[in-house]
Amino acid sequence: MYRLVFLRHGESQWNHENRFTGWTDVDLTRRGIREAKEAGKILKENGFSFRYSFTSYLKRAIKTSYFTLEEMDLLWVPVEKTWRLNEKHYGFLQGMDKREVAKKYGEEEILSWRRSYDVAPPPLPLDDPQHPANDPKYQELNEEGCTPGTESLSDTIKRIIPYWENEIIPKLKQHKEILVGGHGNSLRAIIKHIKNISDADIVSLNLPTGIPYVFEFDENMNLIKDYFLAEEKKLKLLMEKVANQIKG
Amino acid sequence: MYRLVFLRHGESQWNHENRFTGWTDVDLTRRGIREAKEAGKILKENGFSFRYSFTSYLKRAIKTSYFTLEEMDLLWVPVEKTWRLNEKHYGFLQGMDKREVAKKYGEEEILSWRRSYDVAPPPLPLDDPQHPANDPKYQELNEEGCTPGTESLSDTIKRIIPYWENEIIPKLKQHKEILVGGHGNSLRAIIKHIKNISDADIVSLNLPTGIPYVFEFDENMNLIKDYFLAEEKKLKLLMEKVANQIKG
Repeated sequence: MYRLVFLRHGESQWNHENRFTGWTDVDLTRRGIREAKEAGKILKENGFSFRYSFTSYLKRAIKTSYFTLEEMDLLWVPVEKTWRLNEKHYGFLQGMDKREVAKKYGEEEILSWRRSYDVAPPPLPLDDPQHPANDPKYQELNEEGCTPGTESLSDTIKRIIPYWENEIIPKLKQHKEILVGGHGNSLRAIIKHIKNISDADIVSLNLPTGIPYVFEFDENMNLIKDYFLAEEKKLKLLMEKVANQIKG
Repeated sequence: MYRLVFLRHGESQWNHENRFTGWTDVDLTRRGIREAKEAGKILKENGFSFRYSFTSYLKRAIKTSYFTLEEMDLLWVPVEKTWRLNEKHYGFLQGMDKREVAKKYGEEEILSWRRSYDVAPPPLPLDDPQHPANDPKYQELNEEGCTPGTESLSDTIKRIIPYWENEIIPKLKQHKEILVGGHGNSLRAIIKHIKNISDADIVSLNLPTGIPYVFEFDENMNLIKDYFLAEEKKLKLLMEKVANQIKG
């Protein structure tokens, strides 16, 4: 049997300030660090012991993996970092307050930018200092002219699924138990693919920060079951919190 | 031009307690974390910006790399971990107080175990829980029956130089500027090789914790110069401190 754990990063500064983040490289809050350590603790208590891990190019995900693995005494485990696990790029919304955007553009528009399958927010201009084309960490991507200035969930899926198929699944087969750190939308993209969730239904899937989401597969990589590693009550509260972020 | 920075981990709990550590996986002290952050600060001030990094399987080196890279805002940079960069295995000495060992066995014997080229301390027995054969992180190595119970510097050199040639140099050529985190003896082993230091002279090379040691190479990988990134005075004090650890 294969076990894979998805872990959305702990609370970031802009989760806390209720701002759109996307590819902006904001740090974890103290609470975010605590969430990462708690994830490590509950994983250890439930007998998990990873032999390989993946995370994004963004420090809130990298630091979450670090503190989770440290808590499990697994700092020696390889951590493969990739821009393909980055959050969905939120275009011109990045840095904006979610409630203010909702007031200005309406809740329906913002829900579509945040959660719909194929609508992308208006892009950042290429000469914007925030555009990833101007960030040395995306140099390789930039050389191919592929740095995005915005993304829909469908765009995010297009860049993550080949990596899922060609990099993550082979490592899962090799190592049996792996950790995949990431972001609300990059993980939703993979989960949509695994569970075959419809374009309409994916809108309402909300991943809480810092809660390990376990997927168990049989030897043919058929999904046996998936579950969050948290108490039912805590989980319900967390999911409602994510869904309610735009309410004023 | 190629620039490679060697970085011995910051002060560990057993550096602080003056005990032999070797492959024992002890943590950094608060001071060790501060040293790692200071290393990141001085590297940043001097215009370094790594594109790849290596470290050992031991958390004092992994955490040093982490805090150094975090300070440089380079957490996204790949960190390749390998047992080959581990400290020299100190056999039965691991965990023992350096001064007490010096009193019991004499300063000459201890200097030979610590710094000589081809003398290894007596080994840990294979059934000792501390022996790496009993640690899941060395499973791969163990399958080949190659987990050491002790090492001389010569043994350390034998396992590190192939890795230097086949993994580190190619990455240096590819990325131009890389960080190699490690330990007093694994780094001495590489430096002995690069600078062609004699078996006798290597005994007196002491690397201070947390001070970046820069090596510049020309395009044919000939060494142009090497220097520590620290004030002269601070450096002298630190090196004397390492040399004097066994004085009672």
